[in-house]
Amino acid sequence: LSCITQPATLGTVQRKSFAGLNCSVAQCLEIVGERWTLLLVRDLLLGVSRFDAFEARLGIARNVLAQRLAYLQESGIVERVPYQNNPVRYDYRLTAKGQDLGKVVTAMREWGDRWAAPDGPPVLLIHDTCGHPTTLVPTCSHCGERVRRSDVHHEPGPGAADPNRTPGTVPV
Amino acid sequence: LSCITQPATLGTVQRKSFAGLNCSVAQCLEIVGERWTLLLVRDLLLGVSRFDAFEARLGIARNVLAQRLAYLQESGIVERVPYQNNPVRYDYRLTAKGQDLGKVVTAMREWGDRWAAPDGPPVLLIHDTCGHPTTLVPTCSHCGERVRRSDVHHEPGPGAADPNRTPGTVPV
Repeated sequence: LSCITQPATLGTVQRKSFAGLNCSVAQCLEIVGERWTLLLVRDLLLGVSRFDAFEARLGIARNVLAQRLAYLQESGIVERVPYQNNPVRYDYRLTAKGQDLGKVVTAMREWGDRWAAPDGPPVLLIHDTCGHPTTLVPTCSHCGERVRRSDVHHEPGPGAADPNRTPGTVPV
Repeated sequence: LSCITQPATLGTVQRKSFAGLNCSVAQCLEIVGERWTLLLVRDLLLGVSRFDAFEARLGIARNVLAQRLAYLQESGIVERVPYQNNPVRYDYRLTAKGQDLGKVVTAMREWGDRWAAPDGPPVLLIHDTCGHPTTLVPTCSHCGERVRRSDVHHEPGPGAADPNRTPGTVPV
């Protein structure tokens, strides 16, 4: 548990860092595990790029928004490109690392559509290849078959701190 | 923006509620958008079920842990089943709604494996059907083809507050 005593700052918020945890879920949460941050990533994925547009869409305080964007830039999730000088103004865009968070946002959207959208999905994902609304079906990168929750188990990987310990046993 | 002024409590933490936002990502974050919560769900997915085990694995204060578990129960994500009387002790288990968060946790794990695991993945997902480590390849629920980020676009769905507004335009 000494691995989670290092404090991290997110703007002015002091919090325990997950950086020392031997877990890729925790490493993802270390960067996007703040509620506003994934809504910012959602907007960036939809093509929103300007500070004022984020502010209007999220109703977030300007200083908090500036902190979140700076943290995402520092973490390699967004890059900013000037679109105006005097005064300088920036477009914010996702890097490849940031675009790859699209899968996390999509998984959240599909969960919300299923469990918290009584009037139906607010947004549909259209698959341009076939032209139909789609939900994503996970298939195996090795055999191509559909992967269900009952068809998988977890094993320690090459980056495991303790290769002999089954994931899920105490301690982490 | 009046839709996000209703305060919500998560234990003792006052925060703005996302409940009024017309967005399934926000509805998912309304429930799991707190860093510890998704690590709790991760552990529940791995079969961890006891309060003391969560405490040992997460290094989280007992009162905070109790609040998080109560909130997950209230939100229909976990249910608790007594395994002992005098004093009564509970096993915590994911409901179907909670198990469905597995896709969110998996998407986070895969992102962390790719971008924040310099020694390789700490945990592997093994596909029992073929016996190999797997990463999940998203395919279309309609046509079965692989879905790439460049192959999709978003449209307003049946639950859209404003069916004429393209997702991503201001305001949300």
